[in-house]
Amino acid sequence: MANLDQIEDQPMEQAPLPIRDEEGHLHPDFIAAVEAAIEAEDQAALRELAGDLHEADTGDLIETLTADERPKFVRLLGDLFDYTALTETDEAVRVQLLDDLPNEVIAEGLGDLDSDDAVYILEDLDEEDQAEILGGLPYADRAQLQKALDYPEESAGRRMQTEFIAVAPFWTVGQTIDYMREAQDLPDSFYEIYVVDSSFHLLGAVALDRILRTRRDEKMTSVMTETRQAVLATEDQEEVARRFERYNLVSSAVVDENDRLVGILTVDDIVDVIQEEAEEDLRALAGVGDEEISDSVLTIAKSRLLWLVVNLGTAVLASSVISLFEGTISAMVALAVLMPIVASMGGNAGTQTMTVAVRGIATQELSARNMFRVLRREVLVSFFNGAALAVLIGLTAWGWFQNAGLGIVIAGAIIVNMLFAGLSGLLIPIALDRMKVDPAIASSVFVTTVTDVVGFFAFLGIAALWFNLPF
Amino acid sequence: MANLDQIEDQPMEQAPLPIRDEEGHLHPDFIAAVEAAIEAEDQAALRELAGDLHEADTGDLIETLTADERPKFVRLLGDLFDYTALTETDEAVRVQLLDDLPNEVIAEGLGDLDSDDAVYILEDLDEEDQAEILGGLPYADRAQLQKALDYPEESAGRRMQTEFIAVAPFWTVGQTIDYMREAQDLPDSFYEIYVVDSSFHLLGAVALDRILRTRRDEKMTSVMTETRQAVLATEDQEEVARRFERYNLVSSAVVDENDRLVGILTVDDIVDVIQEEAEEDLRALAGVGDEEISDSVLTIAKSRLLWLVVNLGTAVLASSVISLFEGTISAMVALAVLMPIVASMGGNAGTQTMTVAVRGIATQELSARNMFRVLRREVLVSFFNGAALAVLIGLTAWGWFQNAGLGIVIAGAIIVNMLFAGLSGLLIPIALDRMKVDPAIASSVFVTTVTDVVGFFAFLGIAALWFNLPF
Repeated sequence: MANLDQIEDQPMEQAPLPIRDEEGHLHPDFIAAVEAAIEAEDQAALRELAGDLHEADTGDLIETLTADERPKFVRLLGDLFDYTALTETDEAVRVQLLDDLPNEVIAEGLGDLDSDDAVYILEDLDEEDQAEILGGLPYADRAQLQKALDYPEESAGRRMQTEFIAVAPFWTVGQTIDYMREAQDLPDSFYEIYVVDSSFHLLGAVALDRILRTRRDEKMTSVMTETRQAVLATEDQEEVARRFERYNLVSSAVVDENDRLVGILTVDDIVDVIQEEAEEDLRALAGVGDEEISDSVLTIAKSRLLWLVVNLGTAVLASSVISLFEGTISAMVALAVLMPIVASMGGNAGTQTMTVAVRGIATQELSARNMFRVLRREVLVSFFNGAALAVLIGLTAWGWFQNAGLGIVIAGAIIVNMLFAGLSGLLIPIALDRMKVDPAIASSVFVTTVTDVVGFFAFLGIAALWFNLPF
Repeated sequence: MANLDQIEDQPMEQAPLPIRDEEGHLHPDFIAAVEAAIEAEDQAALRELAGDLHEADTGDLIETLTADERPKFVRLLGDLFDYTALTETDEAVRVQLLDDLPNEVIAEGLGDLDSDDAVYILEDLDEEDQAEILGGLPYADRAQLQKALDYPEESAGRRMQTEFIAVAPFWTVGQTIDYMREAQDLPDSFYEIYVVDSSFHLLGAVALDRILRTRRDEKMTSVMTETRQAVLATEDQEEVARRFERYNLVSSAVVDENDRLVGILTVDDIVDVIQEEAEEDLRALAGVGDEEISDSVLTIAKSRLLWLVVNLGTAVLASSVISLFEGTISAMVALAVLMPIVASMGGNAGTQTMTVAVRGIATQELSARNMFRVLRREVLVSFFNGAALAVLIGLTAWGWFQNAGLGIVIAGAIIVNMLFAGLSGLLIPIALDRMKVDPAIASSVFVTTVTDVVGFFAFLGIAALWFNLPF
């Protein structure tokens, strides 16, 4: 059997296989060894290879395995499988794997997790499976998870962890330290301790380094910082991410509508949100949804088709502008050759401005206050670049068709279209944002429509006038 | 004086002005009050308004002020101005403001900062100013900052903070706590304590929560985790960011080439890098460099023009394909009307695939291992969507020009171009990455060239054959 030979070639006992290659991908030899162990149902070998991995490595490994191998992998690892790894895989992979595992097994696995990880795994399942898995958990865990699942999707309440340490205002630093030395059920890791009154209203937070540098007999209230910034459980995760980023937070208390402490958010959850947010804009501008590399052909085809059909509308509109000038083109077919240049340069320039505007709006760097300054700048940039390109393109057209007039016509059309590109690239995202439409999703259709329509119209129109051609 | 009237209208003493509006922008009333205080040189009012802000709010405020107001703002705030705020502004704003301040004043301000913030502010200045400012600092600070500045740009050594706590391996938890209670010059905030041997080789790290839950007489070595993941000072910040993200790190030790502890990185520095990395891809795909909303017209125009000129090459190439078919277009001018549709649909589909591929490469989700699976999927997606669009566009063309043949021709061209779009959208980024060229920067020029050239060639070529037209 080829797979086993391969393993015997490696001096496995002496030096453990490297998990990742220099580029940071999982190492092919490591994957091969894992797959061989799964195929041979060699539990001991698999537990040796993958029983002690970081959850992120396990997550990547699961994504790399085939759909058939994944449940076998979890089954063979048994109690060494850390379900946190499922928070590190694509949604499609996670849902498929969970479908293949019995709900009792999942319930047992989720019991050990922090609540935020358990919720993250549960939230993509259908309600029936959710209920069955929750039913298999101890009452206290179940109630906590159910409460988190009741918060809206993508809210702070969904992302928060309900394990935290809160002490009474009259406690001293020494009492707090003693409590932590003795308590059995502390969270896995934490960065702050919270001070709450008897009805769990949040009074303040104390960073751990603060506790360590303070004398034992100081009151917790005297070292706590009042949290101006407590997050509401119903708040949208993007809002929260922006605040973490702006104020360099590492963790934050989450309170309910009565200002009672219900959970905490830590920066590692937020890092994913920040990354997603920037990536969402990129995908939205290119017309791809939140598809993942493991999604099926049909899912992807459908989500992309919608965007293509919308763009078809744009293209047909541009074509109908051209059709106004059929007579002009018949009389001078060189116009048909050159017209895509005008539209394409406008499209590129418009996309440049639009990209900057969309990110400026998302990061709040572009606001009503500096809008006019930015608008003035975009007009000047469009004018400079339009003039430079007009000279370049005008000379090219002149040389190509040995027709100076054609050079002048295309130069004029370029200047006009570049101005419209700059204006629409800035004003369309701003207008959409004012109308509460996400500018990342809708801008590029409108901007391309403007630059195509104006490009063809300006070029063919100026040509018809200049050369006195029929329409 | 209008400005003062405006302030008197506000019941300032009773309730402090809100700093931000509901959308998270700085509040216009707050900005107006600050500007009035600057204009009136009312130091007391300004210190009251802005002396106690978070550095992030001060940074945003500085960006909002005019170039003239900024140095006055810093001067009036005096010792209440926290230079950390400069790490929260755009580079252009920071450099301009630092140019307007005397170097002695800057040196005094930087003396209070953590080393990572001081380096961040210094690194954009020219060498002469750097040397003068460093000369105004105490010897120890100067040596530390100089060492950090000697590391390459965008390396871990540049981003790290040299303030950290390291203890000897024989120390107990109790000794460590006592040391922290008494030491005067601890870092502002920290999450881990490091264990080093007598020559400062890194042995391990102890998270603060671990210290708090351990008995005083335990040895630090018995609670430390060996750091598999120490960052090399020369390592690129993007590599480091990927590791923080993958392993959910909050802080990490930084070591030199001899494995000696030289600094630490915390997640708040890394969050900015993660954000920049995702945003860089977005900008690169749209052909805008790392321009900032406060850059000058000329800087921006120049950086965007390069991209536009490169794209002009693409457009001219596409036009020369059209010029091969001048005879064909003369004979049937409807082809000129419809041809942009074929090129544009291909361009959109290619951009979709390319965007997914570029991000897949950046996040390492797309690798040699799943390349063929993804390729197969892209071909199928292109075929499905190509077929759907071919029907839609074919019927449109037929109805529009009352010519069934024209519908068949454009449908065929769409199917061909969609296949090329899918293939080039995936294979071009992968090929560029193999050749060590950043796929985000170069892909879109090549992909658009393919979809334009193939689009025009397929449509006009098929038409010439089908209708038996001249070339």
